[in-house]
Amino acid sequence: MSRSIRLAVIPGDGIGPEVVAQGLRVLTAVLPSDVKLETREYDLGARRWHATGETLPDAELESLKEHDAILLGAVGDPSVPSGVLERGLLLKLRFAFDHHVNLRPSRLYPGTAGPLAGRPDIDFVVVREGTEGPYTGNGGSLRTGTPAEVATEVSVNTAYGVERVVRDAYARAQARPRKKLTLVHKDNVLVYAGRLWKSVFERVGREFPEVTTDYLHVDAATIFLVTQPERFDVIVTDNLFGDILTDLAAAVSGGIGTAASGNINPDGTFPSMFEPVHGSAPDIAGTGTADPTATVLSVALLLRHLGYEREAARVEDAVAADLAGRAGAAARSTEETGSALVNLVS
Amino acid sequence: MSRSIRLAVIPGDGIGPEVVAQGLRVLTAVLPSDVKLETREYDLGARRWHATGETLPDAELESLKEHDAILLGAVGDPSVPSGVLERGLLLKLRFAFDHHVNLRPSRLYPGTAGPLAGRPDIDFVVVREGTEGPYTGNGGSLRTGTPAEVATEVSVNTAYGVERVVRDAYARAQARPRKKLTLVHKDNVLVYAGRLWKSVFERVGREFPEVTTDYLHVDAATIFLVTQPERFDVIVTDNLFGDILTDLAAAVSGGIGTAASGNINPDGTFPSMFEPVHGSAPDIAGTGTADPTATVLSVALLLRHLGYEREAARVEDAVAADLAGRAGAAARSTEETGSALVNLVS
Ligand SMILES: CC(C)[C@H](C(=O)O)[C@@H](O)C(=O)O
Ligand SMILES: CC(C)[C@H](C(=O)O)[C@@H](O)C(=O)O
Repeated sequence: MSRSIRLAVIPGDGIGPEVVAQGLRVLTAVLPSDVKLETREYDLGARRWHATGETLPDAELESLKEHDAILLGAVGDPSVPSGVLERGLLLKLRFAFDHHVNLRPSRLYPGTAGPLAGRPDIDFVVVREGTEGPYTGNGGSLRTGTPAEVATEVSVNTAYGVERVVRDAYARAQARPRKKLTLVHKDNVLVYAGRLWKSVFERVGREFPEVTTDYLHVDAATIFLVTQPERFDVIVTDNLFGDILTDLAAAVSGGIGTAASGNINPDGTFPSMFEPVHGSAPDIAGTGTADPTATVLSVALLLRHLGYEREAARVEDAVAADLAGRAGAAARSTEETGSALVNLVS
Repeated sequence: MSRSIRLAVIPGDGIGPEVVAQGLRVLTAVLPSDVKLETREYDLGARRWHATGETLPDAELESLKEHDAILLGAVGDPSVPSGVLERGLLLKLRFAFDHHVNLRPSRLYPGTAGPLAGRPDIDFVVVREGTEGPYTGNGGSLRTGTPAEVATEVSVNTAYGVERVVRDAYARAQARPRKKLTLVHKDNVLVYAGRLWKSVFERVGREFPEVTTDYLHVDAATIFLVTQPERFDVIVTDNLFGDILTDLAAAVSGGIGTAASGNINPDGTFPSMFEPVHGSAPDIAGTGTADPTATVLSVALLLRHLGYEREAARVEDAVAADLAGRAGAAARSTEETGSALVNLVS
């Protein structure tokens, strides 16, 4: 049997190309020899925008569709006005490819530093809605720039959108040993959106009688993430709360250097996109010191999404072994970490 | 000279009455003997709602106005549908009395436990906008309860509202030794509200040339709160981000048991309201074990707001001394902690 993966690669800005290079090395090393990996690189991000003014031309969007998955490094640079690349590239991809399941696992690997280091019981996954909420761009401003300005942002939530991500989260909880799902929202203040999320959460829950459920306000959830992270198994939440909680989750587990994410279109109509949670880190770009671990773990999510479960597990085991061995060792270069992981998966 | 304070007291639900009782003891003990303290208690909260269906009748709202300040314990109970007391009482007070400066200091007192214990350099204050953003109740839902439901929440931001809270935050930063102000928002996604906040922040900043400024996206801010809390001095942010960040700030500093807040109407048109950040904690209500420290620190904010700066400092020093002495000691009752603080301020 001959299989193939058509992978679109968006290295992006800053440390993006550096970490993506290592992610691809590990991917190549772990794939069975009969799997043909075809990659195509896309020059998108700050450099391209400065050169041409383009963020994501239609032709490229179309061409990206011809792939099985997308691997993205990081996008963004202080020289580009805030929002241009986020709305014009990153969010455009998430919305155009209907990446409604934004998957962000948090695991505290033995050996990692950080405020909660040494607690092996942190192992949860945030299922963040990816195509609705305050991310829809439904805002505006009136009398802009005057003392009478009014600026609004509208969070849009649909039963359709909430139900599909909630059901996905239940299914993930069901497949995990602890089978626990926590809904995070702020339904005591955001009463309309909150009512919708909570009622869908309860209704869909009837299809998953084995899953234990829980509800937390987003403010309380941040406290528990720091003080009792072991209480979480799967969390489902809206786009903005998910954005905030997953950065916090990264901080309290292995750090932002190990936080992976998948922007998933579960039905496969469009390619899913995998990227580290961290940004382009222009301050350390070019120094060869960025940690490629988050990208490598994103490659694991990519492999699992494409059905290569065994290879995904091998990559994750390699990362665990590598992190465990790192404790106390001298700082390594991006390339050295990549090589260590390549060796471990080969 | 004879002075007086007319204080409205809303003990509320759960542990509210227990912690408020200790707050009042400390307040009475610290006030100079020539200050007459007149308190009037308001029966508002879950009990009242169950009994009468009322959350905050107009007559009571009017009568609260006749006071110099309000001390609130905590409001809420699982038996009341989410949102009823929040919108009908807590937020109603904040909006009716134009509490646009929601002040939440975070200090890691020596002796306190928690993930970052032992770091004496945590000392910042969050100035959270209190009357706009996603808290305005400007949402709605269409085809409610059907598979075609759409639910929206509108974040409303005005130049008027943003400017006054930003100016207040600059003035606070200016008065502190480090003179640093960080704006937290998410202007790469919430582009309209973000543009307004950022432009007002820059414009008002010109009036405070000594204040160093900084901007962080809310997701990045959660990371720094955990990993580098010492980088913060004063933070100014919107209503919802402020809600989330201050619970997190409490978790990483002294814990939610020491987090105080003031809902301030700076021009004094209406009474300001002081309350612990924690909730009514029904699980421990009646056990006499709630920590009244957050309420006592809220009393310090109240004293400072009314011009009793020396007394405010005495209360804060007492809390610091008490927390430092607590390390390793047996758990104390609410009353014992109150007595210890009364002794320290007397
Ligand atoms: C860059 C930004 C648009 C993005 C988001 O807010 O989703 C990022 O923070 C993330 O979490 O992937
Ligand atoms: C109870 C709730 C309405 C309130 C808020 O969201 O402001 C609380 O969380 C707070 O921070 O004071």
